[in-house]
Amino acid sequence: MNTFGDKWSFTSFGESHGAAIGGVLDGVPAGIAINFDLIRQELDRRAGKDQKGVSQRALREPDEVEWLSGVLDGRTLGTPIAFLIRNKDARPDDYAYLKHTYRIGHADKVYEQKYGIRDWRGGGRASARETTARVVAGCIAKQELVAKGISIQAQLVQVGAETDPAKFTDTIAAYQHEGDSIGGIVECRINGLPVGTGEPIFDKLQAELAFAILSINACKGFEYGTGFGGVTQPGSAINAVSGGISGGISDGTEVVFRCVFKPTPSTPKAGVKGRHDACVAVRAVPVVEAMTALALVQFL
Amino acid sequence: MNTFGDKWSFTSFGESHGAAIGGVLDGVPAGIAINFDLIRQELDRRAGKDQKGVSQRALREPDEVEWLSGVLDGRTLGTPIAFLIRNKDARPDDYAYLKHTYRIGHADKVYEQKYGIRDWRGGGRASARETTARVVAGCIAKQELVAKGISIQAQLVQVGAETDPAKFTDTIAAYQHEGDSIGGIVECRINGLPVGTGEPIFDKLQAELAFAILSINACKGFEYGTGFGGVTQPGSAINAVSGGISGGISDGTEVVFRCVFKPTPSTPKAGVKGRHDACVAVRAVPVVEAMTALALVQFL
Amino acid sequence: MNTFGDKWSFTSFGESHGAAIGGVLDGVPAGIAINFDLIRQELDRRAGKDQKGVSQRALREPDEVEWLSGVLDGRTLGTPIAFLIRNKDARPDDYAYLKHTYRIGHADKVYEQKYGIRDWRGGGRASARETTARVVAGCIAKQELVAKGISIQAQLVQVGAETDPAKFTDTIAAYQHEGDSIGGIVECRINGLPVGTGEPIFDKLQAELAFAILSINACKGFEYGTGFGGVTQPGSAINAVSGGISGGISDGTEVVFRCVFKPTPSTPKAGVKGRHDACVAVRAVPVVEAMTALALVQFL
Amino acid sequence: MNTFGDKWSFTSFGESHGAAIGGVLDGVPAGIAINFDLIRQELDRRAGKDQKGVSQRALREPDEVEWLSGVLDGRTLGTPIAFLIRNKDARPDDYAYLKHTYRIGHADKVYEQKYGIRDWRGGGRASARETTARVVAGCIAKQELVAKGISIQAQLVQVGAETDPAKFTDTIAAYQHEGDSIGGIVECRINGLPVGTGEPIFDKLQAELAFAILSINACKGFEYGTGFGGVTQPGSAINAVSGGISGGISDGTEVVFRCVFKPTPSTPKAGVKGRHDACVAVRAVPVVEAMTALALVQFL
Repeated sequence: MNTFGDKWSFTSFGESHGAAIGGVLDGVPAGIAINFDLIRQELDRRAGKDQKGVSQRALREPDEVEWLSGVLDGRTLGTPIAFLIRNKDARPDDYAYLKHTYRIGHADKVYEQKYGIRDWRGGGRASARETTARVVAGCIAKQELVAKGISIQAQLVQVGAETDPAKFTDTIAAYQHEGDSIGGIVECRINGLPVGTGEPIFDKLQAELAFAILSINACKGFEYGTGFGGVTQPGSAINAVSGGISGGISDGTEVVFRCVFKPTPSTPKAGVKGRHDACVAVRAVPVVEAMTALALVQFL
Repeated sequence: MNTFGDKWSFTSFGESHGAAIGGVLDGVPAGIAINFDLIRQELDRRAGKDQKGVSQRALREPDEVEWLSGVLDGRTLGTPIAFLIRNKDARPDDYAYLKHTYRIGHADKVYEQKYGIRDWRGGGRASARETTARVVAGCIAKQELVAKGISIQAQLVQVGAETDPAKFTDTIAAYQHEGDSIGGIVECRINGLPVGTGEPIFDKLQAELAFAILSINACKGFEYGTGFGGVTQPGSAINAVSGGISGGISDGTEVVFRCVFKPTPSTPKAGVKGRHDACVAVRAVPVVEAMTALALVQFL
Repeated sequence: MNTFGDKWSFTSFGESHGAAIGGVLDGVPAGIAINFDLIRQELDRRAGKDQKGVSQRALREPDEVEWLSGVLDGRTLGTPIAFLIRNKDARPDDYAYLKHTYRIGHADKVYEQKYGIRDWRGGGRASARETTARVVAGCIAKQELVAKGISIQAQLVQVGAETDPAKFTDTIAAYQHEGDSIGGIVECRINGLPVGTGEPIFDKLQAELAFAILSINACKGFEYGTGFGGVTQPGSAINAVSGGISGGISDGTEVVFRCVFKPTPSTPKAGVKGRHDACVAVRAVPVVEAMTALALVQFL
Repeated sequence: MNTFGDKWSFTSFGESHGAAIGGVLDGVPAGIAINFDLIRQELDRRAGKDQKGVSQRALREPDEVEWLSGVLDGRTLGTPIAFLIRNKDARPDDYAYLKHTYRIGHADKVYEQKYGIRDWRGGGRASARETTARVVAGCIAKQELVAKGISIQAQLVQVGAETDPAKFTDTIAAYQHEGDSIGGIVECRINGLPVGTGEPIFDKLQAELAFAILSINACKGFEYGTGFGGVTQPGSAINAVSGGISGGISDGTEVVFRCVFKPTPSTPKAGVKGRHDACVAVRAVPVVEAMTALALVQFL
């Protein structure tokens, strides 16, 4: 439901326009030093502080993390790390018009069908804001991975048909100008993963990564190694390409995977008022890293 | 590790060339009638009985299921359903030459690195034969889904660059003739799934499906709805395409996903002796259905 | 670790003298009305408001629950219910002398051995205060159980050798006067449980209850039905006594279990300064009910 | 349901009078040497080969374990260890009269109410025979524990009111002679457990042990350390008694717990034909050790 992982177990809570969003990260060993500055940087990155094409809410509402437990004098205690981020700029009134309507392309309707009740205030849990808690927890996980020599590096590699990073900003700006939106592909590279990470049958490394990445809103696909493009290549040509994973288990080489994010349906062009991103893939980059870190840390 | 699901919990066991492979399916309600003929048909389908380009072992060794528990007079008892399939045609001698070598593109080496020990007899657990147990368990799951009005239909939609099903057999035969192999894409359609299946945050329907499908050997990618191809389309064009899932939850329309299988690296061209398939995607089709069924049945 | 249950999944967090203690209760269906007054009453009961022999901290520090998520207009949203209780009266200075010593009969030493680090502030997680979060979550569970016709009633049935409830207050007062402490037995009766609750092999109803109850600090034993006392009775005499559970499954009659709490080792007589209870079994009563509710609600 | 543990995950299957009973033990590291003789000895011990007051079925039907997977050349492969034991002496006809009746004190009735279907052949899963699989799996776990310096020793310490082991045989014989049955108490001592085993809040060592032990049929209670008897002792007298566990975590001293088994209700005196034990606690001893081993091995 709202818990990810069983070793480093992360439970996320909070509605987009409720009192707060936050999380509990359990299973973190005692004695780990937490770099709080790094967490702040990751939150700014997720908020898209220095990028175009992100909603204005993110910029107005700096995410301040309040630590409730699990940390003493900057180090983990081995007890659950609970934290919250207040929704200072919650403006449910902006969404009052949604109380009796559903946004196209959003989960509003299925939520109401499933639960019989709906938090119409900006999507409730089904909001990009929920990823804030993931970024905090993921950043703690990433710090432990780095300490063990494992790095995770995600980046945007495609926006619409554009694959030249130098032109991404302009491409997004063009769609934004038209009140439209566009999808993107994020590539993630994992280095330093010890040989043998993953399980050979069901809990394959790629299955765990896909499970983590496809839990991110708007993500429509996951591929690794030769991926979908490899379908046209004969075995004799791609024999040696492993994508860093063999038989479900890391083989010691760089793990590379890619994931695709669809454009947000909530655009002026679609008649939807309120805040929106022209290319959600931009802000998905740190979330991809966070979820990758949370997936990998289960194997430590 | 070797267990999939926590409601209908399926545990798979058995080495490719050991005494037997099999499984235990726990959590199945009591009183369900099992159609054993259907299971036999699915096993034949997995074995590729009527298809070209499959290894000869499958054809020589009919998979006979021995039921150990959980079924009485053709109905489930509500207790664990245990079954096994003897490895009659086990010929470890064929693989004796592998005792001190690793097959290229296979997991032989990482397994030895992970476990310090290796079952060199035909790949041990990392064998296509392991999927036999999945097909048996998946078929029981599928029967229960069908009884609830839910259908699962997978089919091969691409082989190499070929997308015309009428030409798949010839395409595969051409690669086989050259001692080579080729990849394929399998598409799966789920109909009748009740609105509300899936969880909104981590256990999204698409995440659970991807986790299931990427546990199949040789699978290199999973996509649903607009998938990777949708990246070039603006939001205004693909707003209404949900792929049957919205916010992680089924919306009552057909769920469509696609997955890609790489060509097997064990080919004569690569210097590997023994049995092999020119296009493993062919026999992956019933396995995709089985894993889809096992994933969906957790939500009933 | 700090999560109990997988259907109604309760995660507890917070150190006794940190910023706050609290919890996240996930899996609660949407639309349930929460009686917040009842929760407040249960917290007062746990704090021992109207009873002798309880530590003074409980009386000075009213437990005010702050609801962070999962509830809107007094009803559950189907999303995680997160709550916290600030530690207003946290006085780590009282415990400064423990920074370099261990309290006898407490877990101080093993915690330091296990984690290499220790929250010396009043026991950290190993404090009776942690049960506050259990009582909040358990009360929500209890409300749902009551709505389904299931009642849970625990009471103190023995203090030391005394079994007459009328004399419990005096008995406890006598030990308190001597700076000593005494154990007690709590009996719990469950009525209205549907036939068939529990699983026949490992997750037997009694096993789940014992697991829940023995997670309460100071609890040294659990018995149900004929219990330990029944050992002297022949089968012919106790055939019909089921204690409400048969083969791991509720049989529709009243379920009765008992559990024993040892006296607290932290007493003036033992040379331990600070707050303490002369008979922790008194305040354990609502915690027994809370954990019983959390155990039972998993089976709904 | 039928799986115990998530590290060394043991799944039990099989009906008492079906084709076979057995299990799958997953998560066992590769390279462990299995002592098959020891397993045979434990099965004989469970069958009560050299003891009075056990059912005749056990003696006539030697338990021969067939190993299906996970073991090669006497060592574990790191893959699931599957095994079965055929029910050679299955005599469903003996139980034909139960098809339309329920045995008093047995779970026959609640099973039928829960599942709507019932395996009337000797209790189905609710049979002492199911413990055979536990003993096999537990013995593998025990071997690994012994290799790590951890010993488990259970023994019968009370039969009825009798506490002198020298007189247990006569006491049991007396009840058997009268066609009656009697309960018993088993004490278990664990030595060599590393300091820090267990978790401080919900997964306390004692909670995990109780969960394991109370999953054994006929077990009516679990206590450790000062147990129920300690209720009459003031804190000043029992301060230092830990029972090997402090705050849910092993403290490095011997762990001692006790559990009570009620007499079987199926006796000639109660009008029940067929095989029965006059004192099931006798044969529970190796099962207590097996479940203790399975509980402890999760913490390695």
